[in-house]
Amino acid sequence: MFEYRIIASQGDARAGVFRTPHGDLETPVFAPVGTQATVKTLTPVQLEELGASLVLSNTYHLYLRPGDELVAEQGGLHDFMQWPHPLLTDSGGFQVFSLSQTRKIDDDGVIFKSHIDGSSHRFTPEKSIQIQENLGADMIMAFDECSDPNDHAYSKIAMERTHRWAERSLAAKTRTDQALFGIIQGGVNPQLRKDSAQFITSMPFSGIAIGGLSVGESKEEMHSVVDLVTPLLPENKPRYLMGVGTPEDLINGIARGIDIFDCVLPTRLARHNAVFSPEGRLNLMNAFFAHDKQPIDESCSCYTCRTFSRAYLRHLIVAKESLAGTLLSIHNLRALIQLIKDIRESILEKNFESMVPTWLAQWQGNAVREPSRN
Amino acid sequence: MFEYRIIASQGDARAGVFRTPHGDLETPVFAPVGTQATVKTLTPVQLEELGASLVLSNTYHLYLRPGDELVAEQGGLHDFMQWPHPLLTDSGGFQVFSLSQTRKIDDDGVIFKSHIDGSSHRFTPEKSIQIQENLGADMIMAFDECSDPNDHAYSKIAMERTHRWAERSLAAKTRTDQALFGIIQGGVNPQLRKDSAQFITSMPFSGIAIGGLSVGESKEEMHSVVDLVTPLLPENKPRYLMGVGTPEDLINGIARGIDIFDCVLPTRLARHNAVFSPEGRLNLMNAFFAHDKQPIDESCSCYTCRTFSRAYLRHLIVAKESLAGTLLSIHNLRALIQLIKDIRESILEKNFESMVPTWLAQWQGNAVREPSRN
Repeated sequence: MFEYRIIASQGDARAGVFRTPHGDLETPVFAPVGTQATVKTLTPVQLEELGASLVLSNTYHLYLRPGDELVAEQGGLHDFMQWPHPLLTDSGGFQVFSLSQTRKIDDDGVIFKSHIDGSSHRFTPEKSIQIQENLGADMIMAFDECSDPNDHAYSKIAMERTHRWAERSLAAKTRTDQALFGIIQGGVNPQLRKDSAQFITSMPFSGIAIGGLSVGESKEEMHSVVDLVTPLLPENKPRYLMGVGTPEDLINGIARGIDIFDCVLPTRLARHNAVFSPEGRLNLMNAFFAHDKQPIDESCSCYTCRTFSRAYLRHLIVAKESLAGTLLSIHNLRALIQLIKDIRESILEKNFESMVPTWLAQWQGNAVREPSRN
Repeated sequence: MFEYRIIASQGDARAGVFRTPHGDLETPVFAPVGTQATVKTLTPVQLEELGASLVLSNTYHLYLRPGDELVAEQGGLHDFMQWPHPLLTDSGGFQVFSLSQTRKIDDDGVIFKSHIDGSSHRFTPEKSIQIQENLGADMIMAFDECSDPNDHAYSKIAMERTHRWAERSLAAKTRTDQALFGIIQGGVNPQLRKDSAQFITSMPFSGIAIGGLSVGESKEEMHSVVDLVTPLLPENKPRYLMGVGTPEDLINGIARGIDIFDCVLPTRLARHNAVFSPEGRLNLMNAFFAHDKQPIDESCSCYTCRTFSRAYLRHLIVAKESLAGTLLSIHNLRALIQLIKDIRESILEKNFESMVPTWLAQWQGNAVREPSRN
């Protein structure tokens, strides 16, 4: 179980297969985010059709609602949300720090108030693992503390706490059918990141996650942390860059040896009327598209692009029809998943490195909104 | 074109086939409502999968947004919304009277203010037909005035106006690939309804609609109007009971010789968390369902019932995930469409009349919310 096999590599980029209880996962892979046991607006069948292979769900949200014990009683998260393929849950740590109203952290754990009803709760490493065992995802995360990357003094405290929590997370684990990932923290401080990589990789985790990035640092800082960390990681364990990213983050991350990504960006953009396209990021609310008979992207094979015009999609947006969110989510997810499939293919064919400039140029306009049309 | 062939009947109930430019439509048929060129929350593929064969869209809404000329320029409503099967548009009359902020009616037409932005517009029979020709549905409606059924004096005025507008609608029609239906009005007054049926059937319409019902009259009044009108209608034209209805309305309507129905009920209920079931209408928001592993209806073949538990659907509702609306809409539409398919089969097999009491008993609990659980 949890064998990770590299089947091809070029430079630091790797193409692999991670064996999970719910099937072999081809890497590199992008995981759509299904926070509340659903990738917003999409059915599992629509997710399968657009090529999703891994879905991430959030421990913090599911613990609060509907409750991890209810999910366990319903047969676990796979059965509950009817996603028969690999699932990943985070530790809940990041959401506690970013979403809950108030929180009090000490070395044992964190007390926080629910963002839903203000009720008081306590997470510890043991509690996070217990919740994740109730949820039953294939890949689960050690409980960690994600600190402000620019607060160097605090980054050290948070990192050391994350290390102690990593040990306790490993010790708390009882199920053998879940791959537990350790999380490297340390903000943007090179020495802390090195220390954290060394510490986390010394433990018997099934995979290694890099946390605390894409949380306010610059792109350059993110790249230099990944550049620094990945050479310190074992070859035979999957590497997960948490909460990242944009199309160019995927290209840059894979070039630096990352295997797994997740991000709310494609679905969140979709609900704000924005789509990835070869012309750059487009906001389909724009009157510019009212009469546009083209699909979002002629070269895209998703249901939305095979079926609907920009004019129709804009109409749905203007008319406040929620189908717009569904159709734009299908396209945005498909775009990232197709990109990562193309990248995997290029690694297998040993032409990834020569393609990187093309892909970066192609996707650059999608990092920010196209100024002339928004 | 527009041949309507009765292939079986039992009592007043008919099973037929209506030939349209977008395929043969089997009747009796229930049309999901796609007000703004979309059946809310559903893709055309999901509609096909649940068995929909005819979709209704609203002239008033599409005229205001995105505009019928834009729809025409985009290839018409079938292409715009990518529904390749039969489509029906209403005349816009009912919405002008029920939705617009202020209106001024005279014999020539009606001036009204948009419910979207308060802008002023004018509909006449000629304008309604022009809009519906721009939209390009297979079945279109003569412009009519729907009056309060309990205002007998005004019902006569509205009926007479509807008759003059029926003549003008026929005269205004230029396309030969759209079946124009005349609309019988007259409130709940037997003599007016007789007069209206006689007048409308004397004209060369391709189909006959009964309007002004399900707008505040009692069920008994509705049944007696249908009982009175259908014997006066030609056998060889499809009969459309507008804006009706509930499951029991379909059973009662078909027993009285109706062929076509439409209603927002299944999709509107879905967005308010309510579903049809053999146990009666259920509101899945209810805590009663939090741990319920059953599908909504064991005997239902829809995607939702084949896939998800009530517990999961309740979770989506409580978590305010719009996927709940999608999944409940799929079920509610499938329930009505399966009912009407079963009814059609029973007419073909000549056992419709013996099944009516069973169906009415089965569906009675779906007319109102089940008190103990809501």
